[in-house]
Amino acid sequence: MVVKSELKLIKSLQQKKYRNEHGLFVIEGKKALEELLASVILPYKVYVTNTANFNVKCDCLQLVSAKELQQMSALKNSNGVLGVFHILPSEPIGFKDWILVLDGIQDPGNLGTIIRLCDWFGISSLVCSQDTVDCYNPKVLQATMGSIARVNISYTDLSLFLQGNILPVYGSFMNGASVYESELPEKGILVMGNEGNGISDAVTQFCTYGISVPQYGKATTESLNVGTASAILLNEIRRKE
Amino acid sequence: MVVKSELKLIKSLQQKKYRNEHGLFVIEGKKALEELLASVILPYKVYVTNTANFNVKCDCLQLVSAKELQQMSALKNSNGVLGVFHILPSEPIGFKDWILVLDGIQDPGNLGTIIRLCDWFGISSLVCSQDTVDCYNPKVLQATMGSIARVNISYTDLSLFLQGNILPVYGSFMNGASVYESELPEKGILVMGNEGNGISDAVTQFCTYGISVPQYGKATTESLNVGTASAILLNEIRRKE
Repeated sequence: MVVKSELKLIKSLQQKKYRNEHGLFVIEGKKALEELLASVILPYKVYVTNTANFNVKCDCLQLVSAKELQQMSALKNSNGVLGVFHILPSEPIGFKDWILVLDGIQDPGNLGTIIRLCDWFGISSLVCSQDTVDCYNPKVLQATMGSIARVNISYTDLSLFLQGNILPVYGSFMNGASVYESELPEKGILVMGNEGNGISDAVTQFCTYGISVPQYGKATTESLNVGTASAILLNEIRRKE
Repeated sequence: MVVKSELKLIKSLQQKKYRNEHGLFVIEGKKALEELLASVILPYKVYVTNTANFNVKCDCLQLVSAKELQQMSALKNSNGVLGVFHILPSEPIGFKDWILVLDGIQDPGNLGTIIRLCDWFGISSLVCSQDTVDCYNPKVLQATMGSIARVNISYTDLSLFLQGNILPVYGSFMNGASVYESELPEKGILVMGNEGNGISDAVTQFCTYGISVPQYGKATTESLNVGTASAILLNEIRRKE
């Protein structure tokens, strides 16, 4: 049985404020849960409706009824497993490699995609503006697929961060120079901006270089989505090494 | 006023079966609507709750009440404009450039992203397996942002299509050769597979080459999302030209 106060705690974790207060977050779905249990992120409690479907050993496993699980779940139809994990403290940012900086990313799916790309391309430090969507938002977690455990994510004032840093700063701008023809150093900072408005003025002033992905064929009014633009730019950074 | 039969028609267009039967599809949202009205796709009817917010000239504009628009809408909260458009007939596929083939893409957001990428990279022919999500699905349209008007999309039996074609076929496989080291010809076919299962066996046998995006740093169990993998591979195809 799950006591009322526990249910209340878990439901409160759907809000960033309470996630930060308790240092906990929730993840649903078997695959994502199994990946987190195999990672450095520590479980607080894992609830399952049926242990037969869930083969992972975990000290904090608790069998609950389908009704109880549904009460905890943020999904319309909960899927039999729900885990509560400890938020990983941010590590110091390493300046020995490329760093990805996000300025005001709003869409959880985009942030999830970008975290997964960092994992793929071995970008260990992701630095987000304070108005970027929270990385422990359930929709972000759904899109990261476990990569969240392998990327060091910090939220900070970007002006202060960029002001003091020693690396060259490359901003992704619609009118930036072609990334194909840009010389990319061994290490640097890549800044990606908000979905609608791009990089903010406050951050633009710290961008030493503007780069872009060339459009092929006839120009249209469209821009690339920030997730696909990040994919291409990170690929360009790594392929040049 | 909107008559009952018209309401019924519009609501039926949320289903692929009726979209095909009537040759019509629905799009919501001001920006997407304005883009379609400026494109080659012909409007059938455009409903707005307030003409002041909608500056586009269109013969088939009809003022409706907010309640009527909500009745037509697939959204929880309709946003003041809804357009019904004629489905564009597929044009013959051109074999003079790269063609993108999708084998069983299920997620509407992924298909939307990929259509937008084709538009960006000037890939004019997109060929989908019959079990790929419908490109006039409202969630696909939301992600394409008007690019749907500029890409020629066909649904067909991929085995038959690939069997008869004269171009080399490159499949995206986890264990494919590094795309950085692959020689990509001036024209060819790139095949991207289903989100969970990759390219089907039936289609794999027609793939002359297997390519992949190299993972950087320590290998994880993750793969790239099909949208970001498509972004990187199309970029590689175009940058080599």
